[in-house]
Amino acid sequence: MELVQAFEVFGPKIEYELKTIILDTVSDEYPVLREMLTYHMGWEGEGAGPHAQGKRIRPVLLLLNVVAAGGNWEQALPAAAGVELLHNFSLIHDDVQDQGDRRHGRSTVWVKWGIPQAINAGDLMFTISNIAVLRLKQFYSPKVVLKAQELFQRTCVKLTQGQFLDMWYEELDELPFDAYWSMVAGKTAALLACCTEMGGLLGGANAEACEKFHNFGDLLGMAFQAQDDLLGIWGDSEKIGKSTSSDIYTKKKTLPVLFGLKQNGKFAERWLSGNFGVEDVPELALLLEKEGGREYTEQIAVDLTRKAVNALEKVADNCSDGIALQQLMDQLIGRQV
Amino acid sequence: MELVQAFEVFGPKIEYELKTIILDTVSDEYPVLREMLTYHMGWEGEGAGPHAQGKRIRPVLLLLNVVAAGGNWEQALPAAAGVELLHNFSLIHDDVQDQGDRRHGRSTVWVKWGIPQAINAGDLMFTISNIAVLRLKQFYSPKVVLKAQELFQRTCVKLTQGQFLDMWYEELDELPFDAYWSMVAGKTAALLACCTEMGGLLGGANAEACEKFHNFGDLLGMAFQAQDDLLGIWGDSEKIGKSTSSDIYTKKKTLPVLFGLKQNGKFAERWLSGNFGVEDVPELALLLEKEGGREYTEQIAVDLTRKAVNALEKVADNCSDGIALQQLMDQLIGRQV
Repeated sequence: MELVQAFEVFGPKIEYELKTIILDTVSDEYPVLREMLTYHMGWEGEGAGPHAQGKRIRPVLLLLNVVAAGGNWEQALPAAAGVELLHNFSLIHDDVQDQGDRRHGRSTVWVKWGIPQAINAGDLMFTISNIAVLRLKQFYSPKVVLKAQELFQRTCVKLTQGQFLDMWYEELDELPFDAYWSMVAGKTAALLACCTEMGGLLGGANAEACEKFHNFGDLLGMAFQAQDDLLGIWGDSEKIGKSTSSDIYTKKKTLPVLFGLKQNGKFAERWLSGNFGVEDVPELALLLEKEGGREYTEQIAVDLTRKAVNALEKVADNCSDGIALQQLMDQLIGRQV
Repeated sequence: MELVQAFEVFGPKIEYELKTIILDTVSDEYPVLREMLTYHMGWEGEGAGPHAQGKRIRPVLLLLNVVAAGGNWEQALPAAAGVELLHNFSLIHDDVQDQGDRRHGRSTVWVKWGIPQAINAGDLMFTISNIAVLRLKQFYSPKVVLKAQELFQRTCVKLTQGQFLDMWYEELDELPFDAYWSMVAGKTAALLACCTEMGGLLGGANAEACEKFHNFGDLLGMAFQAQDDLLGIWGDSEKIGKSTSSDIYTKKKTLPVLFGLKQNGKFAERWLSGNFGVEDVPELALLLEKEGGREYTEQIAVDLTRKAVNALEKVADNCSDGIALQQLMDQLIGRQV
């Protein structure tokens, strides 16, 4: 199967599953509460539509891993919906936590309904993600459903630990590299590893193979993050230009920035002074590049990508069709700077 | 078993279970994140101690129902911890939502660590409550653990729906009685019904009997709320006096107040004007009493208590020892005005 085909075939089924679970769970006696969720999912309200729905990469990744493990992807749809709902719960709370007022070009939930209601809507989305995983019982034995639940809850712990670090580190000036990778492990890699391991589990892989699936997702997540950090500074001309979306302007402690700070050179001096505006972003990006931040991060991204490819090959040992998975990986971490 | 004895025997075991689950789940690589949870639970930090820990009524209620159903209460400890953790998750978020800065005489989590971290600590507590329920698998079959999880998740949905209504109704001037009971069903009764039904399930009761256990908890919750509403206005001399803790002063839309508003008399006029201070509270309480708000609520509380007693009797049909349960009920809803 090709990736384009996977999105075409899985996409509508994932969307249908998501809608069914949300509408089955939240009684229509609570139209406003329902609306908060269906609005956030990009189905209703101003600006609703495909471009407001996110790419649904996580459920597609999960289903492709089910296929790779030789399982029936349709039976795994409740879990695919579960990871997407979990991701969206974290986005609703994240927007409150970092006061993000726009997502996919639309007002965020807290902007429309206030912070207290947004926190509660996130809690409900979290609950629905758990319910989605429980719905696997239609097709799987209670023992497998419990394993899926345990994997899901372990992932939630990692997500909240990652979120804790992310917010905690924002307060600090410097950050050791170890701390960065702990944060990435929680914030990005944990959910992708959950998708791949869950795919293995529901595709019928044994415990040993499930570990390989897990490693693949974990490395994929870390490679993705390194690449994302590169793109956040040198991604396109607009970012190197005067864009306020540059990670330098928003003072995100990404991998190249941490490298730059460690060099203790001119970049570190300017960055730590905090005394720069949007017009200084190109200069800082150039300083950071000269001091090796770009090359260092590119090397890390290349290494991690190679490791992820190896991990996928190990998964693919008993995998009939891994083309789409390979393409998805290319799409996620092969994006060019 | 007598209730005093139940608290003595169950208490330390519940506390041990709670601590074990939290410390097993949150790695000691995250001491600050751990501290947020252990502080909130009343074990650490300023003002820690038994008075800071809440009464742990929910886990005790659950375990008493296991005993009533003829089961082994020690095996049900993970679920008892689960309901207490779920309750505490809701408190952490509730304090953020209504800007409550004190709980058990101590600063709340958001006051100490900020709103973003408090939201995240609540999310983690929520996750740990789910993990607690999954730990039942040490003693129960996967099928029973799944049933317990489903009950738990249904409860979470009701809790968030109740919380939605509570916050939504705060914005409205008037409130129909139906809305009040929907809110109480979610905010108070759902978790107590979860405790009693979970007790039945883990005690080995069949589906029909579990429904009776559920009804008992549901009615107990509603009776408790009616009584609590009475105490919130006419509870003690301090409240009828000039206390700012009176539900009249805080403008809570409790049952007597809703009755008073419906009468459209002098109480309604004063209350809706919003033009009263703490010194006017006794006068408003008296007006409300004259217009029948106290008698009405007392009658409702009496009716619901009788129904709860009947429900308990139905549960107790095949119950060897329900004394402690009866005493717990008396303690919860027999509190005198």
